Amino acid sequence: MNSLKTIEYLKDSYSKRICQLGKGKKSGKKIVGTFCIFVPDEIIFAAGADRVILCGGKNDTISIAEQYLPRNICPLVKSSFGSIVNDGCSGVKSCSHFDMVDLIVAENTCDSKKKMYELLDDYVPIHVIDLPQRPDSPAALNYFLDELDRFKSRMEQLTGNKVTDEQLKKEIKSSNEIRKLFHRLYELRKKDPSPINGTDVLKILQKQYFLSKDELKKSLNMLIDEVEEVDHRNEHMPRIMISGCPMSGGNTKVPEIVESRGGVIVAEESCTGTRSFWDPVDENKDPMLALAQRYIKIPCSCMSPNERRIDHILELAREFRVDGVVYYTLQFCHGYNIEKYKVQQALKDAGIPMLFIETDYSNSDVEQIGVRVDAFMEMIS
Amino acid sequence: MNSLKTIEYLKDSYSKRICQLGKGKKSGKKIVGTFCIFVPDEIIFAAGADRVILCGGKNDTISIAEQYLPRNICPLVKSSFGSIVNDGCSGVKSCSHFDMVDLIVAENTCDSKKKMYELLDDYVPIHVIDLPQRPDSPAALNYFLDELDRFKSRMEQLTGNKVTDEQLKKEIKSSNEIRKLFHRLYELRKKDPSPINGTDVLKILQKQYFLSKDELKKSLNMLIDEVEEVDHRNEHMPRIMISGCPMSGGNTKVPEIVESRGGVIVAEESCTGTRSFWDPVDENKDPMLALAQRYIKIPCSCMSPNERRIDHILELAREFRVDGVVYYTLQFCHGYNIEKYKVQQALKDAGIPMLFIETDYSNSDVEQIGVRVDAFMEMIS
Repeated sequence: MNSLKTIEYLKDSYSKRICQLGKGKKSGKKIVGTFCIFVPDEIIFAAGADRVILCGGKNDTISIAEQYLPRNICPLVKSSFGSIVNDGCSGVKSCSHFDMVDLIVAENTCDSKKKMYELLDDYVPIHVIDLPQRPDSPAALNYFLDELDRFKSRMEQLTGNKVTDEQLKKEIKSSNEIRKLFHRLYELRKKDPSPINGTDVLKILQKQYFLSKDELKKSLNMLIDEVEEVDHRNEHMPRIMISGCPMSGGNTKVPEIVESRGGVIVAEESCTGTRSFWDPVDENKDPMLALAQRYIKIPCSCMSPNERRIDHILELAREFRVDGVVYYTLQFCHGYNIEKYKVQQALKDAGIPMLFIETDYSNSDVEQIGVRVDAFMEMIS
Repeated sequence: MNSLKTIEYLKDSYSKRICQLGKGKKSGKKIVGTFCIFVPDEIIFAAGADRVILCGGKNDTISIAEQYLPRNICPLVKSSFGSIVNDGCSGVKSCSHFDMVDLIVAENTCDSKKKMYELLDDYVPIHVIDLPQRPDSPAALNYFLDELDRFKSRMEQLTGNKVTDEQLKKEIKSSNEIRKLFHRLYELRKKDPSPINGTDVLKILQKQYFLSKDELKKSLNMLIDEVEEVDHRNEHMPRIMISGCPMSGGNTKVPEIVESRGGVIVAEESCTGTRSFWDPVDENKDPMLALAQRYIKIPCSCMSPNERRIDHILELAREFRVDGVVYYTLQFCHGYNIEKYKVQQALKDAGIPMLFIETDYSNSDVEQIGVRVDAFMEMIS
């Protein structure tokens, strides 16, 4: 289970992609950086631009960020900010794709990201989409649609290309194909024992907004083929769902701890996991409206009320036959931390055990989390 | 300076107001609780309901809240939540006005409040206004107007009264009168030496959303008359502006420390202070539009971009001839904590010294803050 060829193949993907981005840039392609799955990348691609994700998952740029930002905000925000403002003089190696972006397209989701974007404005041109926080209101949908139109205009201005409905429909179709591939991969994880580790799946999930669409499709197809052939020789291991905050590239801490202590992750209810691909965009509607309708329903904790997330967690827990949920939050993430209360109640009512882990990107608590995971495994085995 | 009759008079105001609310309730008046100055209370009063503020400023209900909410969120949110869910069995005296409300009207401002409101839903009926976070966009204004219309309908439903334009205009005029009285009081504080302590002003500021409008006007007039007669016998003391998070009823910690260490607070740039009354509502426009336009401009850190706040701070610093700014935040308030960076840069450019204090409602750091305030005073004296 630990020698998947696709994972080996993906090891080179960072440098190959940087090379591809560089070539594109030389031939005049604009590169857009995003931080969040609320930004419909169909619009970016329809404008003929390329896209990379800028969410930081590494600890080493956090100290740079703390010269500007408070210490007690989430590590993802600090890590991302540090990667962008890092001038290379700090001894920390800069990630080249952070330097390549022509425009950041951000969104008002949580307090820390929203206010961090204002500081980024000094470093890179930035366009912020205001996101209404009520997912089920017609007025909110209209406002979001207005904001997406403004974003579309900005993309047209950046690239000099008109974003046509035809182009949007083509990109929606293509993104839906990727969503379907992820569903196929997740379908395989429903088997017991699961034919693939969650840590391996995470490695491709983390690259979904970094790789080109073609490369992502190729990798997903390769992985699906490979996983379909896995022999089910393993015995049953406790089946765990991780639910909560994103796990950005570089951050595999919690899944690694869980899977080194005898569990197997079978689903990720997070922006890195199901929230990114679960719902398709309707291909039969006006494309901008279809995008607005699909994206405003993403059950991020910034939405209120957010019962849809709780329903989704229960649905996943049933479908993936999970033995327990690890509710995972990044330190100081108020949204997911407070929402934990409702999720815990719902899981309790459904008889599903839950372990709460709030952590950062450092290694200082790895052992302590490990001991708690051991106790949890014992309980649910 | 320490024996103002108005402050003495206000000592009874809590029990008098509770009595008044109780009588109103008996005769069928509905009572609305609010948490934030983004909720236009003109609409509440125009519907014939009464209004009390529910923001908690006391430490003793925090431990109750921590049974439901994470520890590492702001004390104001925890204190408020604890006051509402407190069933009296915890040994903590319940505030009677928390029990009296028929409806909470809340708003999506910061992450912690937004998510806390979802939990409150189990205890009191709650109506949440979604607040767009871009203050200068026509689309955002339209969305906010839609949200205010929805709030107006909810008030009509609650009270059975129609909210007429005439009634709204009357309430706008009345609220503008209060705003003018606060301006008159603040005008007096521009004198050097200031004729009144900031801690005393805070006591009336904290009651502005608790008292009835008539009682507030009476108290303000009384205080203005009294302060106008104060002899200017005191020598100059360092003139301090507090800028940042709200200071809710019960929380006078930082002003007390500053004023016991030789400073005098001459302005509060906060929701308890200038942000609550600085801008009037235009009396010559359609009342709902005028309300939306005025309220969306409140320079809370939840807004992005929020240059208006920085301009306002610099304007206040000049007008009130401040010697230094105490940038005051409640622990884990990401919005004001991150915005500190831009404020600090602006104050530095303007040559105004700033001291940053992040604290909670406990007394554990009073001495430590005192030592830092001493050093700051020495620097600016």
